[in-house]
Amino acid sequence: MPGTLIIITAPSGAGKTTLVRGLLDRDPQVHLSVSYTTRSPRPGEENGRAYHFVDTESFRELRDRGEFLEWAEVHGNYYATSRTWIREQMAAGRDIVLEIDWQGAQQVRRVFPEAVGVFVLPPSFEELESRLRGRGSDSDDVIARRLLGARGEMRHVGEFDYAIINNELQEAIDDLVAVVRASRLRCANQRARHATYFETLEQD
Amino acid sequence: MPGTLIIITAPSGAGKTTLVRGLLDRDPQVHLSVSYTTRSPRPGEENGRAYHFVDTESFRELRDRGEFLEWAEVHGNYYATSRTWIREQMAAGRDIVLEIDWQGAQQVRRVFPEAVGVFVLPPSFEELESRLRGRGSDSDDVIARRLLGARGEMRHVGEFDYAIINNELQEAIDDLVAVVRASRLRCANQRARHATYFETLEQD
Repeated sequence: MPGTLIIITAPSGAGKTTLVRGLLDRDPQVHLSVSYTTRSPRPGEENGRAYHFVDTESFRELRDRGEFLEWAEVHGNYYATSRTWIREQMAAGRDIVLEIDWQGAQQVRRVFPEAVGVFVLPPSFEELESRLRGRGSDSDDVIARRLLGARGEMRHVGEFDYAIINNELQEAIDDLVAVVRASRLRCANQRARHATYFETLEQD
Repeated sequence: MPGTLIIITAPSGAGKTTLVRGLLDRDPQVHLSVSYTTRSPRPGEENGRAYHFVDTESFRELRDRGEFLEWAEVHGNYYATSRTWIREQMAAGRDIVLEIDWQGAQQVRRVFPEAVGVFVLPPSFEELESRLRGRGSDSDDVIARRLLGARGEMRHVGEFDYAIINNELQEAIDDLVAVVRASRLRCANQRARHATYFETLEQD
C-alpha cells in the first residue's frame, strides 16, 4: 500500500506554511516529512516529531553514507531529508509532504521520480511585495533581498507538475487537497495499491 | 483561457453514467461533449443539446473531411465526436467530458495529447457480474457477452492517467471531481490560463 510523495515549493511570502497546515487538517492520510537537524531541540520538542535531532558528527556520517535526499545549512544549523525515513513512510501507505526549495525538489525527484511537485505562487509580484512588507518587521533591504530570492525561485515553476495560485486561501487549500487526492488515483499508484486486482485485469 | 478535455472510459456496469452525472452536478465548469449522430431526434430532443443531429450524407461528408475525432456505428446509427466543436469549447475555457471506449480514447489522445484519461473500474469482476445480473432484463448469453467485453475493455486501464474504483458512489464522485480540479492546476494549463503572469515569471 504505497503512499505518495508530495513536494511543495514556494517563494517566501506565498503562504506555503498556512496552505500545508490546511492540507494536513483536511486530509489525515497526509503527514509532514520529519527532517534531521543539528539544531538543539527547543523546550517541549520531542525527538522524531517535528525533527530528528542529531549532533553534527552523526549528521555528517549520515550525509556521507548518502542517507540524505537533500540537505542545507541555515543559520549555522544543518537540515536534511532522510531517504530511508521517506521510503518507510511511503511503504506504510502514508502520503508525505516535503516543503523544500526548487533545488531540493530537483534532488528529490532524481531519487523519487514519481513524486508530485506542487509550486505555490502568490497572486502577483505586487501582492507578494505587499505581503512581505505587511509583516512590518523587515528592513527595505531585507525585503528587496527576499523579493529577488522569490523571483529566482519562481522561475522554476515550469519544473513542477502543478501550480497553485494562492489568491483566496480556502480555494488554494481546496486545490491542494484535490491535487493530493488525484495523485493517489494515478494509474501507477492504483496498480501498486490494488496489485492483485490489476494483475487479473492486465493479464493475457 | 483554455479548458481541459477529460476522457472517461469504463466497462458497461462500472457506473460511468451516474459518476459523470455526479461530476456535472458538482462542477458547473464541466460540460458533456455533444456528439454528432444520424439517429432521429426523440420527441423533445433539441439539436445541439444532447446531440447534433445530421443525416447520413452530411455525417459521411464530415467524416471524410476528417472532422471527427472518433466515430462508431451502434445499432445502425452513426455517432461521432467533432474536433472543431471540442476545440471551440476548450478555447472558450470550458472543460469537456468525453465518454468513449478505449479505442476512441486512443484516437482522441492522438489529436489532444494533453487530454486527461480516466478509467472507471468496478470494485471487482464479481461485483461487475452481479451488477449486470441485477439489471434483471438480460439473458445469460447477453450477460456473458457483456462480461467478456468488460474484460477486454479493462485490460486497457494502464493507458489512462487515472483509475477510479467505483466502490462507494459518493467517494468515486469525489475522486472524479478532484481529478478534474487537479487537471486544471497542471502547470501547462495554468501557464495557458495565466499567460502574462507566467511570461513575467519565466523570462530571463
